[in-house]
Amino acid sequence: MTPHTTEALARFAASFERSRIPADVRHAAAQCLLNWAGCALGGAGHPAVERAMAALLPFSGAPSASLIGRGERCDPLHAALFNGISSHVLDFDDTHLATLVHPSGPVISAALALAQHQAVDGKRFVDAIALGIEVECRVALGVYPAHYDIGWHITGTAGVFGATAAAGRLLGLDETRMAWALGIAATQAAGLREMFGTMCKSLHPGRAAQGGLNAALMAHAGFTSSTRAIEAPRGFARVTCGDPHLDDVTSGLGESWEILKNSYKPYACGVVIHPVIDACLDLRRSNAFSPDDIAAVELDVHPLVLELTGKTEPATGLEGKFSVFHAAAIALLRGESSFRDFTDEAVRDANVIALRRRIVAKIVAGTREDEARVTMTLRNGERLSRHVPNALGSLARPMSDEDIERKFRDLAQDVLPQAQIDQAIGLCWKIDEQPDAGRVGAALSPQPQVSYPTRA
Amino acid sequence: MTPHTTEALARFAASFERSRIPADVRHAAAQCLLNWAGCALGGAGHPAVERAMAALLPFSGAPSASLIGRGERCDPLHAALFNGISSHVLDFDDTHLATLVHPSGPVISAALALAQHQAVDGKRFVDAIALGIEVECRVALGVYPAHYDIGWHITGTAGVFGATAAAGRLLGLDETRMAWALGIAATQAAGLREMFGTMCKSLHPGRAAQGGLNAALMAHAGFTSSTRAIEAPRGFARVTCGDPHLDDVTSGLGESWEILKNSYKPYACGVVIHPVIDACLDLRRSNAFSPDDIAAVELDVHPLVLELTGKTEPATGLEGKFSVFHAAAIALLRGESSFRDFTDEAVRDANVIALRRRIVAKIVAGTREDEARVTMTLRNGERLSRHVPNALGSLARPMSDEDIERKFRDLAQDVLPQAQIDQAIGLCWKIDEQPDAGRVGAALSPQPQVSYPTRA
Repeated sequence: MTPHTTEALARFAASFERSRIPADVRHAAAQCLLNWAGCALGGAGHPAVERAMAALLPFSGAPSASLIGRGERCDPLHAALFNGISSHVLDFDDTHLATLVHPSGPVISAALALAQHQAVDGKRFVDAIALGIEVECRVALGVYPAHYDIGWHITGTAGVFGATAAAGRLLGLDETRMAWALGIAATQAAGLREMFGTMCKSLHPGRAAQGGLNAALMAHAGFTSSTRAIEAPRGFARVTCGDPHLDDVTSGLGESWEILKNSYKPYACGVVIHPVIDACLDLRRSNAFSPDDIAAVELDVHPLVLELTGKTEPATGLEGKFSVFHAAAIALLRGESSFRDFTDEAVRDANVIALRRRIVAKIVAGTREDEARVTMTLRNGERLSRHVPNALGSLARPMSDEDIERKFRDLAQDVLPQAQIDQAIGLCWKIDEQPDAGRVGAALSPQPQVSYPTRA
Repeated sequence: MTPHTTEALARFAASFERSRIPADVRHAAAQCLLNWAGCALGGAGHPAVERAMAALLPFSGAPSASLIGRGERCDPLHAALFNGISSHVLDFDDTHLATLVHPSGPVISAALALAQHQAVDGKRFVDAIALGIEVECRVALGVYPAHYDIGWHITGTAGVFGATAAAGRLLGLDETRMAWALGIAATQAAGLREMFGTMCKSLHPGRAAQGGLNAALMAHAGFTSSTRAIEAPRGFARVTCGDPHLDDVTSGLGESWEILKNSYKPYACGVVIHPVIDACLDLRRSNAFSPDDIAAVELDVHPLVLELTGKTEPATGLEGKFSVFHAAAIALLRGESSFRDFTDEAVRDANVIALRRRIVAKIVAGTREDEARVTMTLRNGERLSRHVPNALGSLARPMSDEDIERKFRDLAQDVLPQAQIDQAIGLCWKIDEQPDAGRVGAALSPQPQVSYPTRA
């Protein structure tokens, strides 16, 4: 056991010099910001966000912070909560594949809310995101996989540490207060995997963001905590994980960066489906056929695809996200795979259903998780096949800046006018040069308030 | 495993008829209220409360709720947090001995904040307290002791369920929404024992109160959750306890009442010290001697007394709460044992130190936890001895209504004027007959704002 995990992270979050944060890490923070912003815009009208706001907005304090994709404003603590929910509710946000943490929801939701409350320039904001995500992913590394296997939703539990570190950095906490802040975070860390499939799943990054901001503010005011909150016998790691390996938290801290191993999702559905979608889109783009021509489709996949996404007759948009058959049918039929294709309406589309039922999946030994082969038989007997060795968005084939920007535009197009979309993209890519990072909040909020179509 | 723990508790909290809540349970709820109120008054000026307020009051919404013992008001969510902290910060609140839960902090802090936000009569308020405490203690019974042994501060983790049930009852949640509310609670349940000795210990009931109120409000607005949040394989009980025994949660629900097994502390220090204090106070009251006459004192005690409270030279008030020597010296010297006797000043008092050093403790096999014998040798050779078979506040010798009222007066006397103390006591004892339970909040708040002496 590393003796001083909490203090090492506190020192890193409070005192690590900007000059030692590499340029590629700073760029990754901008990618995180743009991807987070797109996801929050796309999720802003979701009933989970609407209902959380209906419940809690009456208790908001002075409205200094923006709600992404919405016209309302509220206090920073509630803004962190609501934006954390909207950024995760489409299951479309970033993933640190080594731990399954979704890093940006907790960290950026907290950091932006605070940056709208007090003046923060872009450089400090990027520092906070980079260091916050590093703390979050490293706490997760110290307890994964046992912690996750037990049933903790690690985005909630590790997330609050990241949000705390980011907010604490922006507040200028010294090392002692940063350690207290991480302790206040540790003793609030929560989130159960039992909640998957309910609105509470997206509550987790929201609560982590709000709790982290709370923790940093309280430590700033001198509220004390243990400075051994992670590594102590009754601290976070041992209590929530039978088998912590805390050396992984601090080993190479400030030298190797977990944010560089972050990944972005091109499609708003289970990640194991992604290589199948890539293959289907490629087949559709490269060949002239009508959906009616398709007699049968065979998917050669990794075993997890059927275990996690084997739903043959999805009844809701949410179930569609976990149906490889729906995802493949959509891609072949529509030649796209937008988040709009995973709605209740889409899974009930008669044409989608008809094609879906002609698709079978087969587990092929030796297939990797990010690999798939799709073979289509047309009614004229012709067979078309496409092999995808690495899905788009995998570490071997990451989404490019252009891919992330395209995803953002798709998510933003119903929420913001075109000129504002262009402006927001520019702001995010050049966040490091902004005199006032809080402007990102306003840039991502429509004026006047948009009204959302009701979604199921 | 009971299959439907969460739904059974939800049904109980939402639908259990008032007519089936026995009179002694209703009276116990009033005892809880008065004891909670006293503890919160005594703790209201503690630095933990001051610093939490300094950090978070700037973010408060419309001030509809009182802060006990203070002049400020704030929104109900923050009031639940601050009052939960102040009610626990003296380590003087009630204890459900079977689980070590401190039941009232989470439940009453949430219920009163809500009762000040919307009109609630006394009967509904008492229903909510009784049912909330029942849910809280029963969730705890299902996971204790493994859950506590692992390192969870059960007042935080079980507390949020109780706060949720109480707030949900006041909001009139139906059974489905109550189950969602308990699920939202489950996925926020947190609090580590590592925090003992820091301000975060009292944060736990505060956060439980605030989180429970949040959970009830969100479920009321339709925010969904699992309805198997407690008993599911990745639900609260299995994730936080290797060995849950969920039958204990629901067995006899609505027939036997845990609130009747709640206990109150007469002295603001570790409960294992209490029989020693009883014996010392009795010796002092029954005999004429001056402290200078005391040559030596011998304490015959249970082994836990030395394990938990064996500190011979406490340096702070907090350490004094865990020193049987300090507690015994104070009782013999001053003939009292007020919460004021466990301050930094008291443990540094030269007379206290001199007497403390003449006290020895001896583990005597067969002594029960609530039993002690104190034998004093005077300089003239005379020996005085007192045996206490059951400490005041133990289940075998509970504090009477008069004892609780005396404790309240001691805690309130520096904070409220005498007339207001009398009025508040009357209000609490007759809470069941009040047309507006929220009046308790104002009755416990000084006007104008008191200024607190700085405490270490």
